[in-house]
Amino acid sequence: MLIPRLIERKRDGGALTADEWAGLVRSYVAGDVPDYQMSALLMAVFFRGLDTSELGALTDAMLASGDRLRFDGWATPRVDKHSTGGVGDKTSLLIAPIVAAAGVAVPMMSGRGLGHTGGTLDKLESIPGFRTDLPLRRAEEQVRRLGAALIGQTPEIAPADKRLYALRDVTATVESIPLIAASIMSKKLAEGLDALVLDVKTGSGAFLPEPARALELARTMIALGEERGCTVVALLTAMDRPLGHALGNALEVQEAIAGLEGRGPADLMEVTTALAGEMLVAAGVVPSMDAARATVRQTVESGAALEKLRQVIEAQGGDPRVVDDDSLLPRAPVIRALPAPCAGVVTQVEPRAIGRAIVALGGGRRTVEDEVDPAVGFVVPVKPGQRVERGEVLGTVHARSDAAADEALATLATAIQVGTSAAQLALVSHRVSSVGTEEMAA
Amino acid sequence: MLIPRLIERKRDGGALTADEWAGLVRSYVAGDVPDYQMSALLMAVFFRGLDTSELGALTDAMLASGDRLRFDGWATPRVDKHSTGGVGDKTSLLIAPIVAAAGVAVPMMSGRGLGHTGGTLDKLESIPGFRTDLPLRRAEEQVRRLGAALIGQTPEIAPADKRLYALRDVTATVESIPLIAASIMSKKLAEGLDALVLDVKTGSGAFLPEPARALELARTMIALGEERGCTVVALLTAMDRPLGHALGNALEVQEAIAGLEGRGPADLMEVTTALAGEMLVAAGVVPSMDAARATVRQTVESGAALEKLRQVIEAQGGDPRVVDDDSLLPRAPVIRALPAPCAGVVTQVEPRAIGRAIVALGGGRRTVEDEVDPAVGFVVPVKPGQRVERGEVLGTVHARSDAAADEALATLATAIQVGTSAAQLALVSHRVSSVGTEEMAA
Repeated sequence: MLIPRLIERKRDGGALTADEWAGLVRSYVAGDVPDYQMSALLMAVFFRGLDTSELGALTDAMLASGDRLRFDGWATPRVDKHSTGGVGDKTSLLIAPIVAAAGVAVPMMSGRGLGHTGGTLDKLESIPGFRTDLPLRRAEEQVRRLGAALIGQTPEIAPADKRLYALRDVTATVESIPLIAASIMSKKLAEGLDALVLDVKTGSGAFLPEPARALELARTMIALGEERGCTVVALLTAMDRPLGHALGNALEVQEAIAGLEGRGPADLMEVTTALAGEMLVAAGVVPSMDAARATVRQTVESGAALEKLRQVIEAQGGDPRVVDDDSLLPRAPVIRALPAPCAGVVTQVEPRAIGRAIVALGGGRRTVEDEVDPAVGFVVPVKPGQRVERGEVLGTVHARSDAAADEALATLATAIQVGTSAAQLALVSHRVSSVGTEEMAA
Repeated sequence: MLIPRLIERKRDGGALTADEWAGLVRSYVAGDVPDYQMSALLMAVFFRGLDTSELGALTDAMLASGDRLRFDGWATPRVDKHSTGGVGDKTSLLIAPIVAAAGVAVPMMSGRGLGHTGGTLDKLESIPGFRTDLPLRRAEEQVRRLGAALIGQTPEIAPADKRLYALRDVTATVESIPLIAASIMSKKLAEGLDALVLDVKTGSGAFLPEPARALELARTMIALGEERGCTVVALLTAMDRPLGHALGNALEVQEAIAGLEGRGPADLMEVTTALAGEMLVAAGVVPSMDAARATVRQTVESGAALEKLRQVIEAQGGDPRVVDDDSLLPRAPVIRALPAPCAGVVTQVEPRAIGRAIVALGGGRRTVEDEVDPAVGFVVPVKPGQRVERGEVLGTVHARSDAAADEALATLATAIQVGTSAAQLALVSHRVSSVGTEEMAA
């Protein structure tokens, strides 16, 4: 296998065979294909794409590079949710306990924040003691016992994907639909799922801002999953503004707990219910979305979901008392408010700038090695379209120092605009399944 | 300077500033930009190209990464020729002594064979003792004294280009016109030239087979050179069949010597005369191409060119007796002939397959580290359009072993086809200069 010939073929619009993809991924993981050849190939894939059979072969090769969760002989349906990443997206923290409380297993493997978007692992790790690095066998046991485990991509899971993702991140080859699809699906298939619900963010704060590209990713993932025995349903949800109010790791955990107590922001609860509902339908435990919504509501109102979160936190070494006492979560020493400069309508709450400001505060990563400060972030209670009075608090910054707070407030002041009228995307705009694409009511 | 952002901008069709290119090249040479980021950027350049100002900035940055030949205060005009690479292209070995014998200095810096094409340095090194790795100061002295030096790209010359070329070679990013142009020109500018004649090969054996792309390279190089005070003229020459008969390092040296003795194959002599003639015209020592042709002929017929080659070989440590006794050149132990399978017209002599077969024989490189066997190769006396009888020798292979000869003969038997009619490119099809493009008579 002459690697430059393979790169050349892809560069010129040809396809690699399944064996070539398998060999390439194997050799890459073994260190026989250097990063500089792989990054050139990835850039060629960025421009030329992958055909269906290549995409499947790459996904299978990445999956085969590691171990997977095994639930042989266990009848409980297993479902996960995956989001393409956003700002303030803490739905995983609500969904896993809700769905598990409804009797469906959620072997959830999440990622870390990188770029302007947050990561579920960073959020979870703001809970004192919480471990996301469970060995696979222990995660399997926890899923069988509690119905949920919230873990990271262990070194045993799709190591090829892990290395490829790190390489893509530093070579501007992240935003490729087939590469995104293969990366997600290789990890999700390793979870031993029956179904996957995909939350594809659209709008300015999304990795793929244009709805057309978001739909393309959804359709790619659906085809890829179906071929491999995993039902995939996708919802397109709005990321032209942050989701919920809390933005930053510990602040988001606090808001997720509030959500499980029935006190979550409306947009967060709507997206959570839509995604969790789809998971219950896909798992076959409810006959319809209406029934699913009722079940979700019931797990929250009964306290079952909150109790499930408490159990998961405890099982993973965290302090379960945070569920009842959020003063146990890390808190930033400096809290400052941004008043509205004038009365009017909030015209934008720009998520990308806010996401970058969280990174600047220390709440996200510039490089993989960066330590994350769990306490910092923003609380932005206003949404586009909302009327505000002059001096009303548009948001607060939670910072480590006065200097950091000043800088973050300046960013927030440009990210949140007050004017006369606002346009925003529908919170859940499309539902895509193997049957087709449905536009949802705004 | 955030490298992934620069890659992303180029990937998305934007341009890097001159400062960004300069910084990037400097950081790459310093080891601060890793190969995997550079190769991704190069692939993005492959797809997106470089605008005029980027191309100039990259060229200047590569030139500035090293030293150059200096001929300050020396009035003798300096001219070089550069070929984009072919099979059997030994014109450099004839041109340097011819042009030097005509009183024009030729500070010629050549490359090694890589891929299916041969390299002048490998050919020269088949002469026992010949050194191509002269220090720059010694090369300058030799050029002033003899009018010619035939050297390799020393580590001091455009080290950035050297590293980038090696990277491009293994990442399928060689065939990019701006990258080719910048690479050639950074080295040629380092030779301190007044003019450069470019031999752009076209046809199946060329790096850029399509004439349109060859013309694009020619025009790019002309603009790039003119802006930097170096007149560039390009000839498009045929590489749909090998040039001359001898194919392989020592075999080609032998044919070049025969050419300087007035016994060279017609096609080789025609291309040599055209290129050397352009060099003399560009140098201003003759008023026209007709006069230039006469001068070229005269340097050969008088023996002056051959004597110049003898002097250069001696000056560079080689055994000058090879000029008079070709048995002093390395010879392969196994020589076998390919007879024509039937009478007819030679319809093709496919240069790419033959070039690859030379590599397979050991006469070229698969990787930069490979040792080259100078003795092996082919002699193919037939040309497309030529009538042959059944059993007539189409070519001979010169091999290290019987097994290697068998394999090479099998390749040759498919590379040379005998049928009923042949089409071939004009040997010199176009002349391109800053004035415009001229189509030459076939």
